[in-house]
Amino acid sequence: MQFSHDLSLKELAGKILTEPSLHMRFLLEDKTRCQQLFYQGGGISLDLSRQHLWEDVINLLLKKANQAGVQEKFAAMMAGKRVNKSENRAALHSAARNPDIPLLVNNQNIARILGDIHEKAFEFSNKVHEKKICGSKGEPFSDVLLLGIGGSRLGTQAVYEALSSRHKNLLPLHFLSTVDPNAFIAQTRKLNPDTTLVLVVSKSFTTREVVDINLSQIRNWLENAGLRASEHIVHITGKGSPGDRISESFCLEVFNIFDFIGGRYSVTSAVGSLPLSLAFGPDVVKKLLAGCREMDIHAARSPADQNLPLLAALCDIWNGDYLGFPAFAMIPYSAPLRYFPAHMQQLYMESLGKSLTITGETLPHDKLAMFCFGDTGTDAQHSFFQMLHQGRALAMDLIGVLQPPPECRQSAEGHKAHEELWTHLLAQADAFALGRSEGRPEQLCSGNRPVSIITLKNLMAEDIGRLLAFLEARTVYAGFLKNLNPFDQFGVENGKLMATELRRNFSKSSFSSTGTTGFYLKALKDGYLTFPNQNGTQDPPM
Amino acid sequence: MQFSHDLSLKELAGKILTEPSLHMRFLLEDKTRCQQLFYQGGGISLDLSRQHLWEDVINLLLKKANQAGVQEKFAAMMAGKRVNKSENRAALHSAARNPDIPLLVNNQNIARILGDIHEKAFEFSNKVHEKKICGSKGEPFSDVLLLGIGGSRLGTQAVYEALSSRHKNLLPLHFLSTVDPNAFIAQTRKLNPDTTLVLVVSKSFTTREVVDINLSQIRNWLENAGLRASEHIVHITGKGSPGDRISESFCLEVFNIFDFIGGRYSVTSAVGSLPLSLAFGPDVVKKLLAGCREMDIHAARSPADQNLPLLAALCDIWNGDYLGFPAFAMIPYSAPLRYFPAHMQQLYMESLGKSLTITGETLPHDKLAMFCFGDTGTDAQHSFFQMLHQGRALAMDLIGVLQPPPECRQSAEGHKAHEELWTHLLAQADAFALGRSEGRPEQLCSGNRPVSIITLKNLMAEDIGRLLAFLEARTVYAGFLKNLNPFDQFGVENGKLMATELRRNFSKSSFSSTGTTGFYLKALKDGYLTFPNQNGTQDPPM
Repeated sequence: MQFSHDLSLKELAGKILTEPSLHMRFLLEDKTRCQQLFYQGGGISLDLSRQHLWEDVINLLLKKANQAGVQEKFAAMMAGKRVNKSENRAALHSAARNPDIPLLVNNQNIARILGDIHEKAFEFSNKVHEKKICGSKGEPFSDVLLLGIGGSRLGTQAVYEALSSRHKNLLPLHFLSTVDPNAFIAQTRKLNPDTTLVLVVSKSFTTREVVDINLSQIRNWLENAGLRASEHIVHITGKGSPGDRISESFCLEVFNIFDFIGGRYSVTSAVGSLPLSLAFGPDVVKKLLAGCREMDIHAARSPADQNLPLLAALCDIWNGDYLGFPAFAMIPYSAPLRYFPAHMQQLYMESLGKSLTITGETLPHDKLAMFCFGDTGTDAQHSFFQMLHQGRALAMDLIGVLQPPPECRQSAEGHKAHEELWTHLLAQADAFALGRSEGRPEQLCSGNRPVSIITLKNLMAEDIGRLLAFLEARTVYAGFLKNLNPFDQFGVENGKLMATELRRNFSKSSFSSTGTTGFYLKALKDGYLTFPNQNGTQDPPM
Repeated sequence: MQFSHDLSLKELAGKILTEPSLHMRFLLEDKTRCQQLFYQGGGISLDLSRQHLWEDVINLLLKKANQAGVQEKFAAMMAGKRVNKSENRAALHSAARNPDIPLLVNNQNIARILGDIHEKAFEFSNKVHEKKICGSKGEPFSDVLLLGIGGSRLGTQAVYEALSSRHKNLLPLHFLSTVDPNAFIAQTRKLNPDTTLVLVVSKSFTTREVVDINLSQIRNWLENAGLRASEHIVHITGKGSPGDRISESFCLEVFNIFDFIGGRYSVTSAVGSLPLSLAFGPDVVKKLLAGCREMDIHAARSPADQNLPLLAALCDIWNGDYLGFPAFAMIPYSAPLRYFPAHMQQLYMESLGKSLTITGETLPHDKLAMFCFGDTGTDAQHSFFQMLHQGRALAMDLIGVLQPPPECRQSAEGHKAHEELWTHLLAQADAFALGRSEGRPEQLCSGNRPVSIITLKNLMAEDIGRLLAFLEARTVYAGFLKNLNPFDQFGVENGKLMATELRRNFSKSSFSSTGTTGFYLKALKDGYLTFPNQNGTQDPPM
């Protein structure tokens, strides 16, 4: 290749997107390069051949990773060191899937504690499945309603949908997150309170939406049906939280979670292990954890140049910080993975959406982490892909699944559909890389868009675990590479402070407010009908 | 304000984000300015008080709109002129909701033709509801399955979900879009073929996913259940397409759509009017169309300085082209609007995702239209809002609904939940605008993020129609302001060409391929198990 070690990444980046001889259509002709950029590990594959990468670039990036000591930091994280500096905490999501590897923190074996909670969740689930635990009228539970928001809901929902295609669903899960009464009405309309088990997920047990509003409505819903609410409700909450320090009269059982696992990393804690073992049985959850474990070990122990999450994170840094792409899109070519883009969006944007480094420097605007959004292929092709081909460019992750669903083995048509799905994935990867240089002006595409292809073997619980842990490790590595703390989220506090202030205004007859806020408070008070017009007088009803 | 007419927009923009005295916390103190930036029209309100705007800026932007002749272009569009230049077509989605205003194009009254198709859809729906049209075994239809992808599905699904909170659902709609066999399996598993009515939506009737794969599988599914497929299938397709020129032995009925309404603008053509009148009855669809009509008239006739879609489009140009925001997020604080961000993403990114203007100039990189993504509030607050507060910034639309669901009138708790929802919306708007300047370094937020608040009175069909038409008109106005053609989508052709090439390779024993593509084709052929390793030999199964 044209550039070598003595050029810095910044110099290289300046040339890559403008130098015609470095267009991806030439890079893709080099079979050796393509082979080198196809990685396997932790049970998945990662194809970086359609990235603006070749051996020299990779080596420069790896050197940077080495200088930043990211593998040492990753090992420190898994060993229980307080890598979450601003909150002076460890970050131990990986310990939740490694119960047999002792992990001593403050003389406590954290791995064992987490493992025991999983065992308790499995036992509880078995009793529900065996109808030993029933609703207060004695009817077996038919549905599980999870109250939780953000990290207490999104990861579990993504995994639940993903597992539903290959594993038998024993109890359907339903999710209630937002405080919108429309959501409460829609969810309770389709459920029978007599046979509904409610899981309340909140680490602090002070999350306003979940505890003050939705749980309170759900308790009434159960009691209005003549049920003892306490026999239908389970708390998944922090050790010592208001939901933990309660008497038996309030709930059926409490499962603890801990401040050393953040919400967005918590699917493999009790946050996910209880609902998912209720949905699919303990064995499926054990396989999910085993898949995570396989990837955790790969992420921690593989050499940097063969380490898939680290290489993916380096790609993110390369595309975002150097090549200037403001966003990346995650496109699973797999309907059961449809909530993974939203899960990744939270994981990535909440972990890396900061401008202050761990050592207190402010990142310049062009070094801020990328946005992340996405949707399933082939749907996205018929929606926002137009812009990605001809308008503002971004980086992309396409996710493929090698095995078709088992039902396709007996169906030539199903098989054809699976091949068609892969055809689209590969065709888009090429279309983004190669572009189109023949045709009328409005048909041309400049190509040269960076695409990674992540391939899972199947959609079994192990595969989903591998993907989940891969995305977590990649995010953590990207945080370490950017010298950010990927475990805190102080930016969301401001909205909560503002809400506390506003909430007081609802009960006042007059109030001071910012900008147009008073208009809304007045309209809401006056019966939801009128806004002041531009002369400050009342308009007729809108 | 500090700047006046003699400064250009570019000069202004350069100062706005850096000049401390122009921080939004000062702009919001000016009550007159806030009042002036609060607009009502077409049955909704648009609050631009938290945008980087004041009278002088608005006037400069309006001058630009006037120079670009966008209102004349909008009028030309509604009058049936060929505004879609590259395809030499009119763009007449607005004619689909104005049957009584004659619109003559080539001596045909297009409005009447579209109106008659709606009447035919209403009549068909009534017959299904009255059980005069039944499945081939004589059973009344209980479910409707819509096969369609992109614009043939997304808008209808967004409106369907939105209408479900206030209108009685007579027949549930289900959607099958992607070619993934997992999706086909999941949808058919929950449906009874005897009582399922299938709507096939494809203008060309050559959409591979819909016609070649999914329709073919659905025909088999019906026939394997001993049914006459033709009595369960309805085509919604272009006049003269292969799905139109068929005998009665193929389907129950054909509803025509036309090339002068693009997929992403087609919800109010037969694409939406048939499934939605099956779901809710003709009266609800008539109200939806009336809401659209109200906004269409507002968009076409209001003076520029009171024209909500035009003002919103000017904001988009201001934020994207001048202030440099690469994206905007749409956040409905309303669970029933949960698919509107995806609908808007398609509408906006497919319409404006182009770099070539109508007159053949190439837009510079920093003038390309913004990305659009989003999710419902309050969920998004607990997910990606962290980044928006402290990391990479974008522009935002928050959508609120003034009226709580009717169920809340009898429920103090429901009422409290509705107030809490609005509290969060308003608190976030302030948090993004004001930022946080007190606290530890990791708690600080710079604020100054632009936020629009769009308010609907309620979630009745009229309200949804107004919102739908507002988003369409805003997108069209933004296209005209950027001098783009918002009606074509040539960028998606390239992926289709690549797919045609690849599809041929699946049947060959050897093939030439790009980069790593051969690895995947081989792995898929070999039983979905192995990839070559980096030495080119076979790895053990992944």
